[in-house]
Amino acid sequence: MDHQDDINARHNAKARKRQAFMQDKIARKTEEKGLLIVHTGKGKGKSTAAFGMACRALGHGMKVGIVQFIKGGWATGEKAVYAAFPGQVDHKVMGEGFTWDTQDRARDIEWARAGWDEVRRMIADPSYALVIADELNIVLRYNYLPVEEVIAGLMDRDTMKHVIVTGRNAPDALIEAADLVTEMVQIKHHFQTGVKAQKGIEF
Amino acid sequence: MDHQDDINARHNAKARKRQAFMQDKIARKTEEKGLLIVHTGKGKGKSTAAFGMACRALGHGMKVGIVQFIKGGWATGEKAVYAAFPGQVDHKVMGEGFTWDTQDRARDIEWARAGWDEVRRMIADPSYALVIADELNIVLRYNYLPVEEVIAGLMDRDTMKHVIVTGRNAPDALIEAADLVTEMVQIKHHFQTGVKAQKGIEF
Repeated sequence: MDHQDDINARHNAKARKRQAFMQDKIARKTEEKGLLIVHTGKGKGKSTAAFGMACRALGHGMKVGIVQFIKGGWATGEKAVYAAFPGQVDHKVMGEGFTWDTQDRARDIEWARAGWDEVRRMIADPSYALVIADELNIVLRYNYLPVEEVIAGLMDRDTMKHVIVTGRNAPDALIEAADLVTEMVQIKHHFQTGVKAQKGIEF
Repeated sequence: MDHQDDINARHNAKARKRQAFMQDKIARKTEEKGLLIVHTGKGKGKSTAAFGMACRALGHGMKVGIVQFIKGGWATGEKAVYAAFPGQVDHKVMGEGFTWDTQDRARDIEWARAGWDEVRRMIADPSYALVIADELNIVLRYNYLPVEEVIAGLMDRDTMKHVIVTGRNAPDALIEAADLVTEMVQIKHHFQTGVKAQKGIEF
């Protein structure tokens, strides 16, 4: 057996062990249920991964509800995708711009409340398989809505309904309540080097 | 001025300062260029965020090339989306299953080489605006391809072409070469609680 064969043989033996472990692990996952998913952290990809899941659900023929609490994160590229799946997407934009643009806290609170009412309506409507509350974490961070009320509302849903909440600074209580939490950590960002927001990347 | 008005006034003053800062920051971003983007980390959302960017690009009428080095990460939901944008997606599946399923290192290396040839072809073809090398980091991690060769190939592209590389354990040299790197960190996963992979979430 030459050196390369030896490496391959050892690799293959390890792979067999790992395969047995993974097969056993997967066999023990039997429950199907609607998940409460949180995408948080300062890095990119929180809304984009939610959009990716929305697209996958559209491909499966599911109906998706999206409430966008802060304007700016979703744009023209997304709308053209929705158009390809007529009647399957209900996307409501509730905010009037990034928080630091509105400069009117009282109005922001009104928008937050209106957005939350939309999320609750979509959660209560059995036709939606997936509901995305985009940037809801920011709304909670600013205390525009009481976190206990929001968590209770998110938990009070059909067994098979999936909900995704995005935004940096997810409250601990929401992380505690969620089934799946991913933190997007920014390791490196092209804005740091003077590159501007671009079609197909940021919007 | 009552207490609530006072909170609002202070918030609004802070928001104005932040707005000025952000406007200045955005004004200084003038460069447009194709980005080398890396999604790494053990958390979910690496491929899903890449898929979300692919969908956004499709909505903009761009052509997208996807080379999937490990089978299993992309599935039926995605294919139905591609069908809605005929001629805009070229998705090649190069692997034969998760690495721990194949148990044949020599064959894995052949697949990796074939996948890399596809990525290079898509990078060289000006009709692709976005190229996704899905799970290429895993291929590099296993030393199936030389990292220097891969980075040189990724850097040798048109000014406006975007490339996304996904997979846990991105090599340091690739992070160094990239414009935008996000690490998806797993905070909590529903597999830990016995819930199985589900339509619209995992596939």
